[in-house]
Amino acid sequence: MRLVASGVLTAASMLMMLDVAFAAPAPRPAAAPVPLEVALRPAAERLIGAALSSDHAYLRLSQLCDGIGHRLSGSRSLERAVEWAAAAMREDGLESVRLQPVRVPHWVRGEERAVMVEPGPHPLAMLGLGRSVGTPAGGITADVVAVGSFAELDSLPAEAVRGKIVLYDVPFTSYGATVRYRGNGANRAAARGAVAALVRSVGPVSLRTPHTGSMGNYVDSIPKIPGAAVSIEDATRMRRLLARGERVRVHLAMAADTLPPALSHNVIGEIRGRERPDEVVVVGGHIDSWDVGSGAHDDGGGCVIAMESLRLMKQLGLRPRRTVRVVLWTNEENGLRGGNAYADSLGDAMAGHVAAIESDGGVERVVGFDVGVNRVGTDSTDVARSAAAMARLKAIAPLLAGLGADSVRTGGGGADIGPLMRRGVPGIAHRTTMEHYFDWHHTQSDMLDKVNPIELRKNVAALAVMVYALAEMPGRLVDVPAATAGRP
Amino acid sequence: MRLVASGVLTAASMLMMLDVAFAAPAPRPAAAPVPLEVALRPAAERLIGAALSSDHAYLRLSQLCDGIGHRLSGSRSLERAVEWAAAAMREDGLESVRLQPVRVPHWVRGEERAVMVEPGPHPLAMLGLGRSVGTPAGGITADVVAVGSFAELDSLPAEAVRGKIVLYDVPFTSYGATVRYRGNGANRAAARGAVAALVRSVGPVSLRTPHTGSMGNYVDSIPKIPGAAVSIEDATRMRRLLARGERVRVHLAMAADTLPPALSHNVIGEIRGRERPDEVVVVGGHIDSWDVGSGAHDDGGGCVIAMESLRLMKQLGLRPRRTVRVVLWTNEENGLRGGNAYADSLGDAMAGHVAAIESDGGVERVVGFDVGVNRVGTDSTDVARSAAAMARLKAIAPLLAGLGADSVRTGGGGADIGPLMRRGVPGIAHRTTMEHYFDWHHTQSDMLDKVNPIELRKNVAALAVMVYALAEMPGRLVDVPAATAGRP
Repeated sequence: MRLVASGVLTAASMLMMLDVAFAAPAPRPAAAPVPLEVALRPAAERLIGAALSSDHAYLRLSQLCDGIGHRLSGSRSLERAVEWAAAAMREDGLESVRLQPVRVPHWVRGEERAVMVEPGPHPLAMLGLGRSVGTPAGGITADVVAVGSFAELDSLPAEAVRGKIVLYDVPFTSYGATVRYRGNGANRAAARGAVAALVRSVGPVSLRTPHTGSMGNYVDSIPKIPGAAVSIEDATRMRRLLARGERVRVHLAMAADTLPPALSHNVIGEIRGRERPDEVVVVGGHIDSWDVGSGAHDDGGGCVIAMESLRLMKQLGLRPRRTVRVVLWTNEENGLRGGNAYADSLGDAMAGHVAAIESDGGVERVVGFDVGVNRVGTDSTDVARSAAAMARLKAIAPLLAGLGADSVRTGGGGADIGPLMRRGVPGIAHRTTMEHYFDWHHTQSDMLDKVNPIELRKNVAALAVMVYALAEMPGRLVDVPAATAGRP
Repeated sequence: MRLVASGVLTAASMLMMLDVAFAAPAPRPAAAPVPLEVALRPAAERLIGAALSSDHAYLRLSQLCDGIGHRLSGSRSLERAVEWAAAAMREDGLESVRLQPVRVPHWVRGEERAVMVEPGPHPLAMLGLGRSVGTPAGGITADVVAVGSFAELDSLPAEAVRGKIVLYDVPFTSYGATVRYRGNGANRAAARGAVAALVRSVGPVSLRTPHTGSMGNYVDSIPKIPGAAVSIEDATRMRRLLARGERVRVHLAMAADTLPPALSHNVIGEIRGRERPDEVVVVGGHIDSWDVGSGAHDDGGGCVIAMESLRLMKQLGLRPRRTVRVVLWTNEENGLRGGNAYADSLGDAMAGHVAAIESDGGVERVVGFDVGVNRVGTDSTDVARSAAAMARLKAIAPLLAGLGADSVRTGGGGADIGPLMRRGVPGIAHRTTMEHYFDWHHTQSDMLDKVNPIELRKNVAALAVMVYALAEMPGRLVDVPAATAGRP
């Protein structure tokens, strides 16, 4: 199936013209520049056609999610997934396939349960939060006080919080606005003398569905109290009971523990660039997941579409001008050690990184890409370089129109590519509708049935074209050197 | 708030006219008959206004579902709910509030778990099915064979099923079409030599959400094997693995047991009719629920709106011509002993039952009522009497137009009123959109957050008007005696 109208010129003739127009000093009279879109179209067509015609990505995702399952840092299944990914890359004919050792935090959930004992007993649907300490062996039993915000917590008199379990019953608005209760809830409650913190799960809908995820680090000056998420059903039930004057008591028992750091690995493979091998386009997702569900959207899908992008280039004999490298980062979820380790390992090679693309928003319907360029050493935007990157992306975007994936915006980034971006590498986020992403995110339900096989193919197609275009186009995504550009 | 335009005549004048037009031999010159809708409108207005202005039903539903929780037959919490309901009816000033003793099956779930051990181990989200036997103490471990239908099961060679766990992976179409795998799956699998049956949960969506519910009775000539539901995620995962040639082995351990029958109760209260106390309109839901969630939509909501219908009449001083009686049936879910016991207790009083209304479709947006009249002794329709009932309902329906609840259809019925209907009592089902009913049905997620408080009020309003109208209108819903009507 062809989604994009065929270009008029042959690929060979266009590459010749591009060389003339954009790259090397012209030995012949200058020709009119060929638009980037036209030059790249023949290869894009082949990538799109191949991606949309293949169920290979879905098979891979089934091997990873159905066969291996979830992949928390420190788990055997994560390392099984690492080995599987490396084997898959070798099978695909990628070059320099390698494992990059990374020490990762090793938090384990252990047995856990929460029960509303008054009124009750009624079991609560709960998941302990990553990094949480466990409870004492016999658990904790205490009255519950519910709040809707940190401000409400802080407004309560000391005796209303001391010795209590604080329940943050905060309705989901956006992830950013509500995840801070998961992140800081335990510390903020502990600072007021609470003995545990429960947070309403960070998600918009629930079928008694708790969402796990990381808490922030404990602060030494504050007691370390356990933190757990409860389902929307349970949080609102307790809030209603409290609102009509009932006493609510909860028993919480968690055997969570943080073991010594474990050995994990980033998985790396590449196709060496035919002209500028030291210039690198990095693309990837994170191979780790939470220890519930199968990490299908978060982020098995991102890993597989990144791998598949390179596999298709290999299969089609497309070796772009620059090196394309897939990196499956480990430990995104509770440590970010993989993203940091990759960036730290680069040394002088950092300068050759022309772009880093992260796919970590699930594999619902693909809509486009967001780009961001930071001021070096910061998390804030380098306006001039971002504008330059945006202009180049806009020239590529028409290749993605037939996929409905041609929306490009600024503001891109990603957890794993953050360390690269802070060192000046332009960052690109692969973007989907995310219509249901936070329904499934960090829950038992993030499994392969939630992935639409045809949308998965389209995601592969869009990412493959984007990676190829960034690696093949005559100029870098951002020509202006980081050291001198965009400073206010 | 008034949703219905005011009638022109006073209630008193209309009741006089109605008596003339419809009921007693006319001592005065005949007046033009007043349409039923007009005659009943003043009372309907008051019921609707009161229902829409009160959060009393929501408070009651919170007491039942948040405070007491789920209510399986044989459980202490069911009997706590029975006592709560009787106390609530007395508080509302209902008359002859009484508990009708009923022996009910006493199935207990016990500890249970299922694990996919190959590939694995991966825990399955499961719920044992009501009536199921348990497994031997050490559980059962066996290979899984997946089928999409009974026909597919029967087409397999004996060795493909014998000693295996059969997984019925049947996508949800309608409840009726798919629930038969829950009902007959274990027996059909056992007949082919399987050691256990797993059924994909009967529901359209899932966030790793198993749905429980009853299996059919075991058949003495076939081995009794355990039956359990697994979530859509788990069923489709196993099916995918099998489809690509993987071996799938599951360990199933269930301590389910059937204890000696327990004592439960129907809860009954009424407002005695001011003119024809021996003619009775029955309205109710079932007070029992499955042992997961809180039975909010199934069927706490139905119980509460039935109770609330009578409470509002009492509060407004509306004593209709006939007796209105609320019956909260016990043991609908796994035995129907309550519905049978009520019908069996009636004797000659059965003839005075002019209609039985059941609300057991949740309390989403109310849309209307379905009516059905059976040929006596059967489950099939008495065409003539159904048509007569339909005509009367259509005359009442305009009162419900402002609530959007004026759709009336044939085909009504209900599990608890089935025994009455088989003895000739017209049956009416309260009908809602049921847009999400089967998302929650028999799951941990059937809790009060799924009930929209305003839709709950509208349900109360619609049911109160319907009950009042049936009890107040001059003629019975069906005048034609059952004994002579509608035989083919």
